Amino acid sequence: MAENIKARLYVESDLRVGQEITLDRDQGHYLVNVMRARGGEYVGLFNGRDGEWLAEIVRTGKGRADLRVRENIAPQITEPDLWYLFAPIKKARLDYMVQKATELGVSLLRPVRTMRTNLDRLRQDKISKNAIEAAEQCERMTVPEVMPMVTLEELLDGWPEDRLIMFCDEAGAEDQNAFPVGKALDEVDAWQGRPEKWAILIGPEGGFTESERHLIRSRAHVVPVTLGPRILRADTAAIVAIALWQSFRGDWQ
Amino acid sequence: MAENIKARLYVESDLRVGQEITLDRDQGHYLVNVMRARGGEYVGLFNGRDGEWLAEIVRTGKGRADLRVRENIAPQITEPDLWYLFAPIKKARLDYMVQKATELGVSLLRPVRTMRTNLDRLRQDKISKNAIEAAEQCERMTVPEVMPMVTLEELLDGWPEDRLIMFCDEAGAEDQNAFPVGKALDEVDAWQGRPEKWAILIGPEGGFTESERHLIRSRAHVVPVTLGPRILRADTAAIVAIALWQSFRGDWQ
Repeated sequence: MAENIKARLYVESDLRVGQEITLDRDQGHYLVNVMRARGGEYVGLFNGRDGEWLAEIVRTGKGRADLRVRENIAPQITEPDLWYLFAPIKKARLDYMVQKATELGVSLLRPVRTMRTNLDRLRQDKISKNAIEAAEQCERMTVPEVMPMVTLEELLDGWPEDRLIMFCDEAGAEDQNAFPVGKALDEVDAWQGRPEKWAILIGPEGGFTESERHLIRSRAHVVPVTLGPRILRADTAAIVAIALWQSFRGDWQ
Repeated sequence: MAENIKARLYVESDLRVGQEITLDRDQGHYLVNVMRARGGEYVGLFNGRDGEWLAEIVRTGKGRADLRVRENIAPQITEPDLWYLFAPIKKARLDYMVQKATELGVSLLRPVRTMRTNLDRLRQDKISKNAIEAAEQCERMTVPEVMPMVTLEELLDGWPEDRLIMFCDEAGAEDQNAFPVGKALDEVDAWQGRPEKWAILIGPEGGFTESERHLIRSRAHVVPVTLGPRILRADTAAIVAIALWQSFRGDWQ
């Protein structure tokens, strides 16, 4: 049966044996016109709650596919509770960053407007679509939640008390107030009482301004870290920081 | 003076006070036509041996710039001894991977042909050019050496005795024969006698074949690791593996 699986798709409806599902237009088009799937073939389905399922394609039309859910093939696995807070950057690199963050298992994406963010509007729906496609491809069973953009001040003012922010501070090495990322992730238990909820904050290309840095560092629950001696681009820094977090505190053990 | 620095460039010639340098055609074009630099302005120079220097632009012509080296501004820093062995992938992602590996500080790039590598020819000169540009931008003072492509068999047959290979084995989690990357990097001293020279081996999209996996794992000096429970693309895996290595064993401490 496995050779007949034409695609892996995220759907919103509940998944249980016998459930009938008509794919939305984009997914129907993809399955029928791009993947050339036909009745009798299978797709993998997940909805972020009910685990991984096999569904049979029972009918196809012009860009349309009706499915019947057949069998649960894996129990639900949930990603670690890690938020990714990022200053949005130019289109291609933003898409890339959203894909990579999803692949690396963040649970929530939050765009943050900073002084050096040159972007007035952000298509939240496009970020969601991009995150869903990345989740389908990397075989995770959840899709990261995509939040609306807020300013840095709004973000910090409404910050939940029980969540740490790992702040990737590119100027941190100079004023000696940030730890190398590995050391910080390894030793933070000792001074913060076994925190489990985290967020990673990455600045825009060009970095945070000095006043933004001070604002961030003045807050409790902020762990400033450095990512080595070379200058990393914002998208590289994001991948690196998320991977290190997963390795030390997430589900890579 | 610092505000007048128009670019940071890699050159091959020796760097010492008073040295005169005429940039090659590409760099001359970039500096004069793209950056619109003029006589009296400065550039930063490095050659991988003599540290970081300031040079004054003494003359410009049509796509031509003559420089005079003025002052050493930083001593030479060398990157850790880390080779990056990669199955080349499609153009855009390959460029991206070379840039990121350079940014993250590898000392040598070695393309490796595998069974699932769909690529007959590789422009080694283009990879070098790409690596030089990335080195200029990320402020490292060396440029990674770019080696010609070899087959996986050739690579392993000529392997130096004193260098470990961190093998990113995507199938390693299933047969339980690979360690989580953080654990492997943390504990390898105990069983391999403080190795200092390393290489990171990443497969093509689609992975190594079973026989290739066995071939790699049959060799001494191979440390098989896993990179978490989700499927990572080859370019993501590369960034992640290099960053973890730098954090545990490289120059991020």
